Amino acid sequence: MDDRKKVIVLLSGGIDSTTTLAIAKNLGHAVYALSFDYGQRHNLELIKAVKIAKKFNTEEHLVFQIDLRSVADSALTSQQTVPKERTLDQINTGIPATYVPARNLIFLSIALSWAETINAQEIFIGTNAIDYSGYPDCRPQFIEAFQKCADLATKVGAEKNSIKIMSPLSGLTKSEIIQKGIELGIDYGLTHSCYDPSPESMACGKCDSCVLRKRGFDEAGVEDPTRYVC
Amino acid sequence: MDDRKKVIVLLSGGIDSTTTLAIAKNLGHAVYALSFDYGQRHNLELIKAVKIAKKFNTEEHLVFQIDLRSVADSALTSQQTVPKERTLDQINTGIPATYVPARNLIFLSIALSWAETINAQEIFIGTNAIDYSGYPDCRPQFIEAFQKCADLATKVGAEKNSIKIMSPLSGLTKSEIIQKGIELGIDYGLTHSCYDPSPESMACGKCDSCVLRKRGFDEAGVEDPTRYVC
Repeated sequence: MDDRKKVIVLLSGGIDSTTTLAIAKNLGHAVYALSFDYGQRHNLELIKAVKIAKKFNTEEHLVFQIDLRSVADSALTSQQTVPKERTLDQINTGIPATYVPARNLIFLSIALSWAETINAQEIFIGTNAIDYSGYPDCRPQFIEAFQKCADLATKVGAEKNSIKIMSPLSGLTKSEIIQKGIELGIDYGLTHSCYDPSPESMACGKCDSCVLRKRGFDEAGVEDPTRYVC
Repeated sequence: MDDRKKVIVLLSGGIDSTTTLAIAKNLGHAVYALSFDYGQRHNLELIKAVKIAKKFNTEEHLVFQIDLRSVADSALTSQQTVPKERTLDQINTGIPATYVPARNLIFLSIALSWAETINAQEIFIGTNAIDYSGYPDCRPQFIEAFQKCADLATKVGAEKNSIKIMSPLSGLTKSEIIQKGIELGIDYGLTHSCYDPSPESMACGKCDSCVLRKRGFDEAGVEDPTRYVC
């Protein structure tokens, strides 16, 4: 009998979600990976997510189709320009054009539905609010509020069997996340961060996500395996 | 200049959501209706929703595609049998097989994303927890928890401009809802409640939703325009 804990991991294919997946696997859980094809311009990340899920030998990897372009206006889901060459101070101030309204809330809600259906006990999400793009739905207080909402929204919650939202990267910097991942044997060459990759699938090197990635590897003292345009 | 308040109304095509739409229109709001094609077996309700939105002259009616069958197990999204001929006592006890895990949470999250994108100030939902199917995500405490979550999940929330979740039917019985709707001029012949309609689009008369509907009309002293198989 399989007595491993069944958990869902939200997997975008970036550094944070891949490290979260490695943490869940390292805890000995039976991992069900969940990715979203939501109309993102950088859907190259999904190709990476498929490879990562395979590499980590997940029990299942579901790529859920939900085209958010009809409801959510964002530089990630439209022809708006992705902000480039911003300094870290600029990245750390305000909410940028790449913010997708309510994205993590939607993703967690769908994960919750799946968790209740397959009897998963936990949902892992790689949010962190230190080296991040300033999205409100990455903050720990959002995760706490979602937990309460999840307990009230579900049958298992009503029966006092809470599905727990796990956010293991919450207090870590990007370099600490990378160091953790290296310890766990992640090949970060499998991951994708860039919001605006070139037609040849190279990272732009200039969007907020590339800037944070580059600095993370630099501070971690680890070579960044990414192929950048510049 | 149009100085009406912009609001979203979740519209399934049943009694409750149609009455909620009529209430929002009666308040003088510019109404954006939102329905979900989620793989429900009774998707006849969507045909009704389109007619209702037209009748009420909404600014827009978006039917959002989200196939929940890959994540959510329910008698409404699978070949499981829909419970029939249950007494009111049975309906009022426990959570039935027609419960769709986290459905209202998912729907409200997508509505929130749209609201933030189009600058809507309120989201109307026709939940009530008196004459209902026992779904946990219809209870007022769920709506309150969602409000908190919405404020933390969004850019407008972070800027202290909360998108308000309005649940105007919250304290009403089904017959009070029907009486309210009749006052507002609703033709309930446009609405659909049955979970398991016949191939000829007639209501089964025996599922929980039909039982609650029949009793509501009965208690309201209003003729039920529904065509029932029995």
